[in-house]
Amino acid sequence: MNHAARLEALRHVLARERVDCLLVGARANIFYLTGFTGSAGLLLVDESRAVLFTDGRYAVQAPEEAGAAARVVICKGGIEKAALARAKGYRRVGFEASAGYRFYQAAADGVGARRLRARDGLVEQLRLVKDEQEIARIRDSVLLNSRIFEETVPSIRPEVAEQEIAAELEYRMRRAGAERPAFETIVAAGPRSAMPHARAGPRPVGKNALLVLDHGAILAGYASDMTRTVFTGKAGERARSLYEVVLEAQQRAIASVRAGVRCSRVDYAARAYIRERGYGAYFPHSTGHGLGVEVHEAPRVAARQKMPLPAGAVITIEPGVYVPGFGGVRIEDVVVVREQGAQVLTPTPKRLLELG
Amino acid sequence: MNHAARLEALRHVLARERVDCLLVGARANIFYLTGFTGSAGLLLVDESRAVLFTDGRYAVQAPEEAGAAARVVICKGGIEKAALARAKGYRRVGFEASAGYRFYQAAADGVGARRLRARDGLVEQLRLVKDEQEIARIRDSVLLNSRIFEETVPSIRPEVAEQEIAAELEYRMRRAGAERPAFETIVAAGPRSAMPHARAGPRPVGKNALLVLDHGAILAGYASDMTRTVFTGKAGERARSLYEVVLEAQQRAIASVRAGVRCSRVDYAARAYIRERGYGAYFPHSTGHGLGVEVHEAPRVAARQKMPLPAGAVITIEPGVYVPGFGGVRIEDVVVVREQGAQVLTPTPKRLLELG
Repeated sequence: MNHAARLEALRHVLARERVDCLLVGARANIFYLTGFTGSAGLLLVDESRAVLFTDGRYAVQAPEEAGAAARVVICKGGIEKAALARAKGYRRVGFEASAGYRFYQAAADGVGARRLRARDGLVEQLRLVKDEQEIARIRDSVLLNSRIFEETVPSIRPEVAEQEIAAELEYRMRRAGAERPAFETIVAAGPRSAMPHARAGPRPVGKNALLVLDHGAILAGYASDMTRTVFTGKAGERARSLYEVVLEAQQRAIASVRAGVRCSRVDYAARAYIRERGYGAYFPHSTGHGLGVEVHEAPRVAARQKMPLPAGAVITIEPGVYVPGFGGVRIEDVVVVREQGAQVLTPTPKRLLELG
Repeated sequence: MNHAARLEALRHVLARERVDCLLVGARANIFYLTGFTGSAGLLLVDESRAVLFTDGRYAVQAPEEAGAAARVVICKGGIEKAALARAKGYRRVGFEASAGYRFYQAAADGVGARRLRARDGLVEQLRLVKDEQEIARIRDSVLLNSRIFEETVPSIRPEVAEQEIAAELEYRMRRAGAERPAFETIVAAGPRSAMPHARAGPRPVGKNALLVLDHGAILAGYASDMTRTVFTGKAGERARSLYEVVLEAQQRAIASVRAGVRCSRVDYAARAYIRERGYGAYFPHSTGHGLGVEVHEAPRVAARQKMPLPAGAVITIEPGVYVPGFGGVRIEDVVVVREQGAQVLTPTPKRLLELG
């Protein structure tokens, strides 16, 4: 990966932000900047160097993963202590506002509160625009996620419990080489499909029910995320019509995507259509979110987000309509924002699947 | 669960700590005190009340789960804002030192930095001693975890990849009703078994290899954690002898457990024996850790931890020996600290299993 280029980009940001170094503690940011996957580390970046502080458990792994991007220091007496001792040499010490209060206290003690500068989302802002290596990783993750969906669907029967389907999806992810699920898999049937954040439960999915499946994997450090809604039987008029509304909304949102278009505009494309069809009150969440090293990252594709989408952003498009007591439909793809429009990465078809 | 009793115990702590209320943000602590499982919440506890602030997604779930223990407030304009507005009514506002720097900043703005009191691990300290309801939950989780181990072992063949075995273990957990794995399942064969924190990889486990399996589940909110080391073939003298050393060390540590004994003493029981047998340099981690709502919680069973174990603490006992280039052995059970000694919850036998 282009770690050197990413560190260089960060250095421009540091100059603009008027800090002499940045202490990076968020695991996803350290991975992005250096490739290090360990659970304990602090990265100090200044105008010419990057130093990764970690502990003895990673004495072999850290140089292997991050040695090309950063100098690795294995700390015996505490990672924080060593990194803060080094940070003392700078006049203005930036740290991530996402850090813990304890870290802030230790830094205030170690460096002096007056030299500390809290900075919000500097690395996250860089992560917003993906390079082609990252897009290739996300595509691999998306393709794996679609494949395991397609392998799992034939095993869905009315008597199978939601949590068995979730287990099956996650099992296939792991066997296919994913590190882990990107989030808790959602499998929600019938009236429970009307709850956008339902967990998979012990109930059988039942006959003639809307069934929402929302799952993602982490593969080689990158996330995927997809939702499909299927019907366990022959769909009646109401379910079919609900499905068509959401599908059309989703396609309109995708059609609205291209570099320079505001996030709010993409959200509006889905939301206005759902409203027009009379379901405005039943679409309580935003249209999508960025994904990459984390399954939820910048940008938010939501009504109040005026930020123009940059080329190279990778986002989900996932409108949903949830009718209490009846059921819900959500359809979600991952797309890359390109100059000319959206490049849809998710290959899984979107016609309504009627099972059994 | 005894939420009312736990809140009452916390109130005694608050009086001792000289704060008029405590803002609890750590998810595991909110669950412990109220039963709420949602991902967004802040709990304010004062001398007579407990108020849970959460958002619209949990309008149904929060009163169901936490309504008996706390008054639930559904916040439209931000959870933090609402909770901090309420906290303004107190002179000394405690907050968890484990909170984020951003929360601290918001609290300093909302309440005034001079009225804020950072407090370390108040709820965590209560969680150290489990009540019998909690021990029953942990036992259920441990039994599930042992059962799925015993179901999975027969499917281990030399040509099966580490990650396939990990996937199988996690799949069976989920099917058996677990919410999720308690941590990333470790399956490490041959020389890789000599890395205490190896992940499961795409390599087949191979013939005549030591194979470490370390896994746990979260069931009904409570963790389990076990490790067994098996041999894929007929074990030679060296592997067998390594195994016997670790098993004896583990049994000595278990035999040393009872209420009032220092954590360091339990660690020493394992460590001294391993040292005596010449493997002192190959046991680089501590002997165990507490578990409950989280898979790693207080106490640490380590050389420098002088704290006496209280009755009702639940800990793992998991010494290991890791010989670079050859392989490693770790054996781990969950035990309850009782007045008279250790009550071992893990039922899985500990003789060396030779597969195939």
